Amino acid sequence: MSTDRLSMTLQALADPTRRAILARLATGEATVNELAEPFDMSLPAVSRHLKVLERAGLVEQGRTAQFRPRKFRPEPLRDLAGWLENYRRFWDESFDRLDAYLKELQKGEKHGSDPKDR
Amino acid sequence: MSTDRLSMTLQALADPTRRAILARLATGEATVNELAEPFDMSLPAVSRHLKVLERAGLVEQGRTAQFRPRKFRPEPLRDLAGWLENYRRFWDESFDRLDAYLKELQKGEKHGSDPKDR
Repeated sequence: MSTDRLSMTLQALADPTRRAILARLATGEATVNELAEPFDMSLPAVSRHLKVLERAGLVEQGRTAQFRPRKFRPEPLRDLAGWLENYRRFWDESFDRLDAYLKELQKGEKHGSDPKDR
Repeated sequence: MSTDRLSMTLQALADPTRRAILARLATGEATVNELAEPFDMSLPAVSRHLKVLERAGLVEQGRTAQFRPRKFRPEPLRDLAGWLENYRRFWDESFDRLDAYLKELQKGEKHGSDPKDR
């Protein structure tokens, strides 16, 4: 199996339960016990999924002794979004136009009314 | 293994060679032979990767008899980008502001100078 960073992220996300755990953690920290309950999973099963998410850098363990709440880390998703941007032109017809438009706006701002940019 | 659509997409992308094949096909159709050459891979190896990409809907087989060029299909990437949007606020500080700004622009256009919108 491949171990480059992006492949690990994609591999970790390629499971609906792990995506559900991530969605839960995105609303706030949770312990393994708190995660196991709504998903109706055994603690070892939750722990296994968390380990995959942790290796991918999507989840980190808190340092509070005993309970060690898990915390969502968005960085790997940001990198994945960056990779996807290479392909956006294939489905987003308005992307090129928006991109051109935003560049125009930036140009306007530089020559225009924002005193911070002078 | 999970077989929901998004999981299949992520699974297919979780390999650097498959992502490289996809990047090549995004520049234009190619036959299995044409794909095998630059990647220095055997035809069966390329075929195996292509099968995973095809099952995920990221590649389709052309109907030209004999050569059957493979073609890139962007739809699964668009859906993945849609899923990622749920998390964009975690890394894109300017996202909320840009979103608000674009809504303002749209409002301006509606009340403004584009006759198509009236």
